[in-house]
Amino acid sequence: MNIGIVGLGLIGGSLGLKLQNLNHCVYGITNNSSNEEKAKKRNLANHVSCDFTILKKCSLIILALPIKDLINPQQELIKSIPSNAVITDVGSVKQPIIETWEKLHPLFIGSHPMAGTENRGVNSGFAELFDDAKWVITPTKNTEPYSTEVLSTIITSFNCEIYKTTPKEHDEAVALISHLPIFLGSCLIESVNTRENSSLLNTSKVLASTGFYDTSRVGGGNPSLGLDLAISNQKNILKSLKKLSNNINEIEKIIKQKDWDLLFQKLSRAEQIRKQFCD
Amino acid sequence: MNIGIVGLGLIGGSLGLKLQNLNHCVYGITNNSSNEEKAKKRNLANHVSCDFTILKKCSLIILALPIKDLINPQQELIKSIPSNAVITDVGSVKQPIIETWEKLHPLFIGSHPMAGTENRGVNSGFAELFDDAKWVITPTKNTEPYSTEVLSTIITSFNCEIYKTTPKEHDEAVALISHLPIFLGSCLIESVNTRENSSLLNTSKVLASTGFYDTSRVGGGNPSLGLDLAISNQKNILKSLKKLSNNINEIEKIIKQKDWDLLFQKLSRAEQIRKQFCD
Repeated sequence: MNIGIVGLGLIGGSLGLKLQNLNHCVYGITNNSSNEEKAKKRNLANHVSCDFTILKKCSLIILALPIKDLINPQQELIKSIPSNAVITDVGSVKQPIIETWEKLHPLFIGSHPMAGTENRGVNSGFAELFDDAKWVITPTKNTEPYSTEVLSTIITSFNCEIYKTTPKEHDEAVALISHLPIFLGSCLIESVNTRENSSLLNTSKVLASTGFYDTSRVGGGNPSLGLDLAISNQKNILKSLKKLSNNINEIEKIIKQKDWDLLFQKLSRAEQIRKQFCD
Repeated sequence: MNIGIVGLGLIGGSLGLKLQNLNHCVYGITNNSSNEEKAKKRNLANHVSCDFTILKKCSLIILALPIKDLINPQQELIKSIPSNAVITDVGSVKQPIIETWEKLHPLFIGSHPMAGTENRGVNSGFAELFDDAKWVITPTKNTEPYSTEVLSTIITSFNCEIYKTTPKEHDEAVALISHLPIFLGSCLIESVNTRENSSLLNTSKVLASTGFYDTSRVGGGNPSLGLDLAISNQKNILKSLKKLSNNINEIEKIIKQKDWDLLFQKLSRAEQIRKQFCD
């Protein structure tokens, strides 16, 4: 199959390597000539170019772009997509991307592979990124069964598990389990930064250990990603933050009132619930 | 040196193994005969007993007990401690323990090794637990220089780095960087548990990944530990929770008002601050 990948960063580059291993012919698009050179050296695709017109040969096109570029796609990209190609994206928010692309192309279907690392850019992709990953697809009432079929065949050939849900439910779920940890982690980091007391700040830095490192890891991640998520999933993120702050107010009240039985119940329940999410 | 260890769990057991490696004679106390047998099999001490009177031979005694047992120590323990022995503890809160023990013994000095794993009990200790760890000591105006000297010699022989601070500052710092992540993590777990929408709950469980796992790890930990910390460090934990909820209210407001420049600044600052804590 001739497959186009727009963007050869972590996800796009990994897709290029994996799809070539499976004997597809990959057409990869980069955003500038420096990345084009690097992508060629790494063999991320059979053909690498900054020129969108190479996509005209493709029967499947995967948009592996930042969310903001998926919501406001370049005219050159839109014009170069053949009308009979299946189009999908790999963005971590679905509703605004699907609203944009269903208007632009009849064979669009949204998707989201649950895989990633801390790294970005044309040097970060590797063929094994999707090993054992789940891959969400979000067909709507407007999606052609043919698009679902073509995409599902590719995902299955990666040995990934397909999980089907609605764009709405996808965005609500990622707001809770993926985006909320980012904003909450950034608030934790801000809370420990006691600039008004430099001696305490120094002691906190010395004593900080794995508990702080892990809880704050995604909160201290790439600020552009956090910003993109807030812009594209604003309503659901606000709902999650509201839930969280209600729960924090409640635990504050319990500790203030020294209701130790209730506190123990709550912490025990958290231990149990987490097991259901992490098993 | 004859050294007593009261409690042979993770910290006490590890101390027993390490101190024997350094050719000290270790007297270990367990809370029941079943643990006594297990500790003997694992050679956690040269002498293991449930009988506190074996401590009478010791010139240094390390209390490796849960916080609640340090704040309300058994009479048999107090009676068995020789008046010329140096006493320390390894509890993760310092003020209430020091208030208790400075009244009970003239040679007490508080301490807190910054080392741990997820495991507990008489089977969990290992000699390498303290490798490269920092060890906080919290002498007060009542502490005898002799106690500081004896404890410091032992810590230095472990190749641990000594960090000296006040009990007050220790407890404020651990409230922020160690205890706050626990309560905040438990609130995150409660927030994602959308029992009112079982379809969303299921999708969230499927999509939960490393971001959620890491951010919630200590929040889903041992509920008895969380309870002990809340009881013994209540005021400082409430102060940290108040800071956190103010920061969450602020980020909510920023996202609601779509002040994307300010949000980007805040997320960038969090990324920078975290590096200072984790390097």
